[in-house]
Amino acid sequence: MKRKIYLKMKSLREAEGLWLGRFSGKDLVGDREISVSEALGRVTSEPVYAGLSSPSFHAAAMDGVAVKAEETYGANERAPKRLRIGENAHWINTGRPLPPGTDAVIMVEKLHETEPGTVEIHAPAYPWRDVRKVGEDVVATELLFPRNHRIRPFDLGALLGTGVLDLRVKRRPRVAVIPTGNELISGESAGLAGAALEGRVVESNSTILAGMVTQHGGLPVVFPIVEDRFEALLDAVRRAVESDCHMVIVNAGSSSGSEDYTAHVLEKLGEILVHGVAMMPGKPTVLAEVAGKPVIGNPGYPVSAVMSFDCFAAPLLRIMQGLPEGRKPSAKVRLSRPVPSKLGIEEFLRVHLGRVGNRLVATPLPRGAGSITTLTRAEGIIRVPELSEGLSPGDEVEAELLVDERALERTLVMIGSHDMSIDVLSDLMKCDPGGYRLSSANAGSMGGLLALRDGTAHAAGSHLLDEATGEYNRSYVARVLGDRKAALFHLVKREQGLILPKGNPKGIQGLKDLVREDVTFINRQAGSGTRILLDFRLGQESIDSDGIRGYDREEYTHMAVAVDVKSGVSDVGLGIYAAARALDLDFIPVVEEQYDLVIPSAFVEDPRVRVMLKAAASSEFRERVKAMGGYDPGQSGELWMEMG
Amino acid sequence: MKRKIYLKMKSLREAEGLWLGRFSGKDLVGDREISVSEALGRVTSEPVYAGLSSPSFHAAAMDGVAVKAEETYGANERAPKRLRIGENAHWINTGRPLPPGTDAVIMVEKLHETEPGTVEIHAPAYPWRDVRKVGEDVVATELLFPRNHRIRPFDLGALLGTGVLDLRVKRRPRVAVIPTGNELISGESAGLAGAALEGRVVESNSTILAGMVTQHGGLPVVFPIVEDRFEALLDAVRRAVESDCHMVIVNAGSSSGSEDYTAHVLEKLGEILVHGVAMMPGKPTVLAEVAGKPVIGNPGYPVSAVMSFDCFAAPLLRIMQGLPEGRKPSAKVRLSRPVPSKLGIEEFLRVHLGRVGNRLVATPLPRGAGSITTLTRAEGIIRVPELSEGLSPGDEVEAELLVDERALERTLVMIGSHDMSIDVLSDLMKCDPGGYRLSSANAGSMGGLLALRDGTAHAAGSHLLDEATGEYNRSYVARVLGDRKAALFHLVKREQGLILPKGNPKGIQGLKDLVREDVTFINRQAGSGTRILLDFRLGQESIDSDGIRGYDREEYTHMAVAVDVKSGVSDVGLGIYAAARALDLDFIPVVEEQYDLVIPSAFVEDPRVRVMLKAAASSEFRERVKAMGGYDPGQSGELWMEMG
Repeated sequence: MKRKIYLKMKSLREAEGLWLGRFSGKDLVGDREISVSEALGRVTSEPVYAGLSSPSFHAAAMDGVAVKAEETYGANERAPKRLRIGENAHWINTGRPLPPGTDAVIMVEKLHETEPGTVEIHAPAYPWRDVRKVGEDVVATELLFPRNHRIRPFDLGALLGTGVLDLRVKRRPRVAVIPTGNELISGESAGLAGAALEGRVVESNSTILAGMVTQHGGLPVVFPIVEDRFEALLDAVRRAVESDCHMVIVNAGSSSGSEDYTAHVLEKLGEILVHGVAMMPGKPTVLAEVAGKPVIGNPGYPVSAVMSFDCFAAPLLRIMQGLPEGRKPSAKVRLSRPVPSKLGIEEFLRVHLGRVGNRLVATPLPRGAGSITTLTRAEGIIRVPELSEGLSPGDEVEAELLVDERALERTLVMIGSHDMSIDVLSDLMKCDPGGYRLSSANAGSMGGLLALRDGTAHAAGSHLLDEATGEYNRSYVARVLGDRKAALFHLVKREQGLILPKGNPKGIQGLKDLVREDVTFINRQAGSGTRILLDFRLGQESIDSDGIRGYDREEYTHMAVAVDVKSGVSDVGLGIYAAARALDLDFIPVVEEQYDLVIPSAFVEDPRVRVMLKAAASSEFRERVKAMGGYDPGQSGELWMEMG
Repeated sequence: MKRKIYLKMKSLREAEGLWLGRFSGKDLVGDREISVSEALGRVTSEPVYAGLSSPSFHAAAMDGVAVKAEETYGANERAPKRLRIGENAHWINTGRPLPPGTDAVIMVEKLHETEPGTVEIHAPAYPWRDVRKVGEDVVATELLFPRNHRIRPFDLGALLGTGVLDLRVKRRPRVAVIPTGNELISGESAGLAGAALEGRVVESNSTILAGMVTQHGGLPVVFPIVEDRFEALLDAVRRAVESDCHMVIVNAGSSSGSEDYTAHVLEKLGEILVHGVAMMPGKPTVLAEVAGKPVIGNPGYPVSAVMSFDCFAAPLLRIMQGLPEGRKPSAKVRLSRPVPSKLGIEEFLRVHLGRVGNRLVATPLPRGAGSITTLTRAEGIIRVPELSEGLSPGDEVEAELLVDERALERTLVMIGSHDMSIDVLSDLMKCDPGGYRLSSANAGSMGGLLALRDGTAHAAGSHLLDEATGEYNRSYVARVLGDRKAALFHLVKREQGLILPKGNPKGIQGLKDLVREDVTFINRQAGSGTRILLDFRLGQESIDSDGIRGYDREEYTHMAVAVDVKSGVSDVGLGIYAAARALDLDFIPVVEEQYDLVIPSAFVEDPRVRVMLKAAASSEFRERVKAMGGYDPGQSGELWMEMG
């Protein structure tokens, strides 16, 4: 059990200090001369001075005739003056040089045509009227840009317009990205999607990291996948450090597993500054210097890899390019539910965000670092400080934004029971030119109604059966929302049924088979619409739930139930047809249920809600949902009832 | 005088409506399939669904041993259990598949080594502990991204991680940029900076526009410069429209000059929607449709070209890519001085911005559309509405930001007499890792003190001579700032003198020659330090200013005076050595004057001011200023006196 012991774990702030302190103030990348046409987005490495004045000659500022002002004196309405073209008046267009001897322009709108070759003026010109004099904009030798200035499109015009055709800029930092891991297979090798991977994982972190390098102005150099072997990794890191790269990122092998060689290799080749940072995700980060170059051992979980890059690689890339510290745009948000957190660890909590009423509401996503969708689906990240034991609902905290701040105002927040038809709504909303988005958090039907009660969502997807009346949702909405006005809109009717392994090896026919001794069931969580439905149907068929093996094992989504069955852990579960179909499982319909959208009346006229309801009522929605199977979207988007 | 008459000029809002209304809702660019490795920043053209579940197998979530949970039941501190490696415990690293028959992982930190081949546990595992089950993150067929989603780096991970190796994205819009104008010469042809251009202008707008196309996600295709001839332009536009470009921009020839053929050409080839927009800069914009493609006749002045692009090309590029309307980040600012504006025209006023005290202060730059530096030097743009006759000091208005919003907090606002040593300070401040910037507006010494009084600047450069005492600045500061505490810091001593044409053809020797009949003088504006200095020295030498030809002609900067002399308009002016040197003119020193920085005490400890004063006191500053000639920076950055 030869395992790497972490160096004393550092706080994020300590680690940043050690890391940036080691490398800042040094010229790590150098500069080079490029032509202006290549300069967009580049950063000046020295001050840039105008080579020529602009304009470089006295130029007409208007279309008209160039004249000598003193020859126009005395002209007025009653005593106009005539000027002869080619003698004392010269046609001139904006931007062209004044002919010798002239010092003013009379604009075309003020000229009166009399006879050919002559123009009449009713007012005099004064010297330099409508003329841009030499150097009016810039005089040669003036400072155009200080160093460390990032060139914008119009800056290119100031350069060319003052005779600067080449300039010196910082080199783009080259960053070597070395993927390592025996379990990895490259995207190319993986071939077509769906190919059997035999326990291997498509290597994706290097693509993420390369994208982040690009986004931060660097040039990524992705190495081939290195096997988990000390000598192999040693060799790869040495080659990267000896190359023309300015920074090296090893991903991963930075933890303490038996095949985690990164720290050993970096210790051998250089100096480790930090091994282990009190952050989550991102703890197993190694920060080192090898031959004067920064080398990062970046953790393997994708979210950890991203956070570690953001904390250590990104700021160093900015420093290398002479750019000031960049912080993401952020906003003050309020949490919709409590977030316990571990003391002594700075946590990067991914959250859904959207403006509901007058509050920006944050609803946490799952916290697993292995789940990249906790980033792709999030609108923001809340940093829970090291010294906090957690956050409470209503706490106002700062969230870094992963989407445009304006997008938050156009985000429809839906919390509740998830259904695949919501994905179709989400896609259709993105077709509206208004830039609307749907942010959907899965909290079960009851969770959705509670979110509406608490003012943390605009809409909830709900399929709660009232066992007493056989009616859906109405009584639950009344109970949870009380007097508050709300509208119920139909979305879909859908089939719930038994999800079974392909071929139904145990020959399960219906609910009565759930009590068989050789059958293991997987249940949904208490309070979910599916659980209520199950209990209702068990009651109808007088089946005792005590007799069902696995009744007490709960999953939180249709898909999780299907996965449980697919992987052989359970023999049967209750869920929607779409989940069975997605995983190519068998399905026995048990009941058609009603899935509605519950929307507080205060939000019904909100443009986000209008756009969603329009999408729900569209023929495209109905066709696409129908094609998924197990759905009846006949009334989708229609108002069912108003309450409260 | 065959000149194009404008179609009825449209308001900006009308023009936008006609333009975007004509082209939005159409698929103007189409889509194509690309691999994930090329997908960063691209926009999905259809919803993207997961091809594989993630994880695609039950995977260890920790480094440790994989076990069957039920074989660990009963283990506790007093009765540990031993597991044999390879039999009922299997070393496993994070992310690797669980061996058949196992359903839990015990992390390495909880294992106790006893004898080789054995590990001891002090607590049981429960099923699926530290295991990431199949599909925990994503289940195959789940929606990953809706259409019209712009791919971020971590999105690439979600794609690869779920078996999506290729996806369909919007094509990047190709935009033809056709520069036109007989006066233009390409940057390449212009050769080295400083080459004689003989009345021609380096073509820079196409580079600006190409940069803007790139910035908005398009691919620019820059055509060779087209001469101002109807058939030549007709041919170029026709070729562009028939090419694979999705949009065409003709720059310029969109106005009403005798060589402005753009509108004629577009009228002949297609339909003109708008000619003339009530905006400034940008009025002579032509918007047309030719063979179903959008074609823009973009004005020739660089600022006009930029504004017209921003209003018409940029939103259409976003629509083409399925992106929501994008507005620039903006901030509420207060004007430092009145801005009269023309009723019926929407004006884009370029402004300096910075936070002074608790206000974001906006100081307008010159308004000429020919001056690209009014954009490059600006921090923001205020839109003065069509129906406004102007804005008053203190009015709170919205400014679109041209710099990062955070940069405004780090911008030192200097208003006053400009000196070239300020450019050196500006460059040195940009070397500080804190991301500080210097924004400098030229308003003369007295203008700077008034700005300090009004709280619209942090610092003012001043060289005001008190003729009674012979001392600089002190009495003026006392008079303008009254009781308010302020500190005076030395920046430089500098030589002011007579600026003369190269070789001094008129043999001017000193101030006494200014009254010669054959000598024309160019003066500085009343209130400027240089004007006061002149009047003081004239008094000392008993020279009557009435006898000086040109005494009543005023320029506002040293450089403008030098330009006047350089271009032969005047024979002599008073100014600093650096201005003479910049334009290769002769110089006769008249007096050494004192140029100070005046800083209200409230700002002396502001980090921006500290960084500037540190730069002023640095040896690099002193060396660079000395090298410019005519300067004595011996006391630069030193506190001279505190007042009030």
